[in-house]
Amino acid sequence: MSEDKLIEGVLSGKRRALARLISLIEDEDSSVSRILAKLYRHTGKAHIIGVTGPPGSGKSTLVTRLTTELRSRGLTIGIICVDPSSPFTGGALLGDRIRMQEHALDKEVFVRSMGTRGHLGGLARSTSDAVRAVDAAGKDIVLVETVGAGQSEVEVVEIAHTVLVTDVPGSGDDIQAIKAGIMEIADIFVVNKADLPGADKKVTEINAMLDIAPTSDKWRPPVMKTNGRTGEGISELVDEIQEHMAYLKSSGVLEHKGLQRSKDELEQIMEYKLTRELMTKLQGTPEFDQAIKRIARRDVDPYTIAERLITKFLASCRE
Amino acid sequence: MSEDKLIEGVLSGKRRALARLISLIEDEDSSVSRILAKLYRHTGKAHIIGVTGPPGSGKSTLVTRLTTELRSRGLTIGIICVDPSSPFTGGALLGDRIRMQEHALDKEVFVRSMGTRGHLGGLARSTSDAVRAVDAAGKDIVLVETVGAGQSEVEVVEIAHTVLVTDVPGSGDDIQAIKAGIMEIADIFVVNKADLPGADKKVTEINAMLDIAPTSDKWRPPVMKTNGRTGEGISELVDEIQEHMAYLKSSGVLEHKGLQRSKDELEQIMEYKLTRELMTKLQGTPEFDQAIKRIARRDVDPYTIAERLITKFLASCRE
Repeated sequence: MSEDKLIEGVLSGKRRALARLISLIEDEDSSVSRILAKLYRHTGKAHIIGVTGPPGSGKSTLVTRLTTELRSRGLTIGIICVDPSSPFTGGALLGDRIRMQEHALDKEVFVRSMGTRGHLGGLARSTSDAVRAVDAAGKDIVLVETVGAGQSEVEVVEIAHTVLVTDVPGSGDDIQAIKAGIMEIADIFVVNKADLPGADKKVTEINAMLDIAPTSDKWRPPVMKTNGRTGEGISELVDEIQEHMAYLKSSGVLEHKGLQRSKDELEQIMEYKLTRELMTKLQGTPEFDQAIKRIARRDVDPYTIAERLITKFLASCRE
Repeated sequence: MSEDKLIEGVLSGKRRALARLISLIEDEDSSVSRILAKLYRHTGKAHIIGVTGPPGSGKSTLVTRLTTELRSRGLTIGIICVDPSSPFTGGALLGDRIRMQEHALDKEVFVRSMGTRGHLGGLARSTSDAVRAVDAAGKDIVLVETVGAGQSEVEVVEIAHTVLVTDVPGSGDDIQAIKAGIMEIADIFVVNKADLPGADKKVTEINAMLDIAPTSDKWRPPVMKTNGRTGEGISELVDEIQEHMAYLKSSGVLEHKGLQRSKDELEQIMEYKLTRELMTKLQGTPEFDQAIKRIARRDVDPYTIAERLITKFLASCRE
């Protein structure tokens, strides 16, 4: 498929083109930044929803239910399932296959799993690019679901406009743990499996936490009860999600976040390009090889050498 | 404590100075690169041993046993316990406290835990710096133990000369999972809790895996059986660890790895410094602010703008 055809295919919402582009993103193909540059103008329309929470809190089922509800409201969906799976425990992505079954015949639901191929930083980057691709393909909603529950998953959902943090009734210790890094990123708390005993207690606990949490925001995260098995509470949850987007728009937070994200992205791209430029000049030169040898021998420290090489590089740009 | 005093303290192996420096590293204090630059010449002597493996495979107990055995051979030890704990599950670091008890009175054992304060990339960086600090303080051995078992932990132990991957007798499924990302990083496999049924089977399984693994190395990772509770097999394990270092030296792999690490580190430092230089020039200029607004509005894509700003930055270095 030529690059132009691929771009055309993605923009007209063709599944195969979109799948192909995400594969290129995963492979870090050199064509990706060119393609994304051309798609860029057509992005920024989708509502990106992140779903994260501890293992066993029913994230997959919840995402399937959300999809059904959002579809019934006439919205088109892309699902990116992120699995920075531990190399020890693997990552079965079973949820992915289940979802595929339920929505397999629906052309307006695009599902894709992404795992780590290499470094974690790469996963955040490629997830963000994949979300952009789905956005360009015209999906109204992009659901970003994490399989695991580590710091990296949290970073991944931070690209979302609305972040759902799931939990289940049960051990109060979880709350303590969640406090640490999650309070700040949750826009909506979801107490899933609400038919289990202790659901109301859990809601009360989270609300108590929210009462004492320092907040600069005008949005107080609602605490919703859902049951992924029966579908109870899902419609109300979707109402809250849409409410949150309305808040983001009216408060100016959406615009502010958009500027912040543009700034971060511009910086990342410049960092990448500038470093590549520097390394192209240095790589393989006798001076660079010599510097590395001296650092390895502990003749000099890398900080001093770095300073020297950069000064020289910047001076050389005069030529 | 003044910078010079701190450096002097670290170099003479003072615990308080070392602990203080690692705190500065964790805080990303601006003095860190200056201090590490001065310590750099005094590093490169310690044997760095990484210990990773699935939760419940007895890594903490193993590290305590290894410490006792290494101490009995007259070696001094630093232990860096890395916990990029999930914000959902917390990280108790109980193992740390247990170890502290056993070796609390031994001045030649330095123990320190490190967690994520912020981004994962930061943890790999700060762990690497902390290991360097312990090295500069003159410890013969640095044990880097991970609490979790995710991709990030694997990245962290990659700074080690010798990587131990622990496992326990039991479910054969684990093997499949371990295959994925771990085969390549293990220098020694440790089947811990070897008194449990199935230990020999586990050893056979790992060996079978190794038989079919593609390898360019001359070192075939041995599969050792240990019992953290009784201390069985620990002495043999330490023999193998020392054997591995002897191999690294005689084969030239140690020298090669040292060069590679020097190169990686030099590149990272240059990337950081160069980006900071660029951002100092751009930040707050009307041109930069305008660019961000246009990207957010989707008037232009960030790739094109990045190219333009970099070209201008490099040209401006002529002045």
